[in-house]
Amino acid sequence: MNSYRHARADSDGEKQTAARAAVRLIRSGDVVGLGSGSTAAHVVRFLAERVRNEGLRVVGIPTSQQTRKLAEQLSIPLTTLDEIQQIDITLDGADEIDPDLNLIKGGGGALLREKIIASASRRLIIVADSSKTVPHLGEFPLPVEVIPFAQPLIQTRICALGARVCLRRDPDGTAYVTDEGHHILDCSFGEIREPGNLAAKLRAFPGVVEHGLFVGMAAMAVVGKDQEVIQLERAARFTRE
Amino acid sequence: MNSYRHARADSDGEKQTAARAAVRLIRSGDVVGLGSGSTAAHVVRFLAERVRNEGLRVVGIPTSQQTRKLAEQLSIPLTTLDEIQQIDITLDGADEIDPDLNLIKGGGGALLREKIIASASRRLIIVADSSKTVPHLGEFPLPVEVIPFAQPLIQTRICALGARVCLRRDPDGTAYVTDEGHHILDCSFGEIREPGNLAAKLRAFPGVVEHGLFVGMAAMAVVGKDQEVIQLERAARFTRE
Repeated sequence: MNSYRHARADSDGEKQTAARAAVRLIRSGDVVGLGSGSTAAHVVRFLAERVRNEGLRVVGIPTSQQTRKLAEQLSIPLTTLDEIQQIDITLDGADEIDPDLNLIKGGGGALLREKIIASASRRLIIVADSSKTVPHLGEFPLPVEVIPFAQPLIQTRICALGARVCLRRDPDGTAYVTDEGHHILDCSFGEIREPGNLAAKLRAFPGVVEHGLFVGMAAMAVVGKDQEVIQLERAARFTRE
Repeated sequence: MNSYRHARADSDGEKQTAARAAVRLIRSGDVVGLGSGSTAAHVVRFLAERVRNEGLRVVGIPTSQQTRKLAEQLSIPLTTLDEIQQIDITLDGADEIDPDLNLIKGGGGALLREKIIASASRRLIIVADSSKTVPHLGEFPLPVEVIPFAQPLIQTRICALGARVCLRRDPDGTAYVTDEGHHILDCSFGEIREPGNLAAKLRAFPGVVEHGLFVGMAAMAVVGKDQEVIQLERAARFTRE
């Protein structure tokens, strides 16, 4: 086994360790937001185990078609925002987590629904392997979801903020299109010193639908580190983006 | 002729008067943003006259398919944001104009592209009949463009801000869908005392793509009043939403 594979295997082990611990935070009766991506998939599987083995009563709201399918296969009862608009707890992954629990999300392309669900949740719990915790956000390219009509304009503006900007593409070279029909610009800022400030600037550009900075939204991060679980809680500042 | 028809005829006369005057602000060499709606259609027709009769050299960027078609029929040279990202002057209509030249736009459903084009323009000139000037914004329902997935959530949140909220529908009763695939909530706030404040609140809800409040964006309004033209200029405060 080469070192790359070894690293991947460890990272997946940490994801599983974290997901198993995070799922224990869910209580019977909860409406549960279900994130997207590989870590969120572990969450869904462990949640299904608790539903099956302990008779835990929950109803889930998935953030992507992929998560919906997996939850359906595992017989987790599901609902939508049409039915329920207050979510008790959402468990989701992240691409980067800083010490204030600010996040970069959206590497998987589901950031818009993930942020909508997070904004409707009493508690957003981030589940991750240890490689996701960073001293500062920004090494991971920040995804910005844009209206195709405005894309060249937004691209120019984000470059002017100091980022290298790439249009996300499908393997065949055409522009990647999100579930809602938008494009994604992957924006490499290097170190993002003031995430709240950058979030406000991006949000102010007409044509930006959403971006992957989650500032002041996560209540807790459950991080797998080797065989251990580290719980990081956010100081209660009541600041929301 | 009944009084309703009479009022309509006057209003269209004022729109034409204003459009003819506003088009005189365009100079040869300008990149011109072309708005949408009945007043903007007059602008396009008068601009085509100047191109034809005076040899005015301009290139237009339309904000809707309808405007694009009309401009093409009238042989106005056109471009897109892919080619040019700095617009010299944009002429567009509005549903309400307050004394600070804050606006409600989007009755026609093109608010997103209109705001994108406005944000890329050195000068946004609003062209309107006199019925559109109001002491306070808010009698006209404010259009808010939303991701269908988030619509029930946003609807609840805007109600909590004190508005009556209606999903815009097509004549057949199905939800109206914008050019970009979103829904529109028409939100009756009554009097909007602090448009900048409301704009910031709406923009902060994940799932809101854009809204029809244009705060601090218009440089001038050209308003037809009977046979006369009134030019309203905004005090230079350099505030932008």
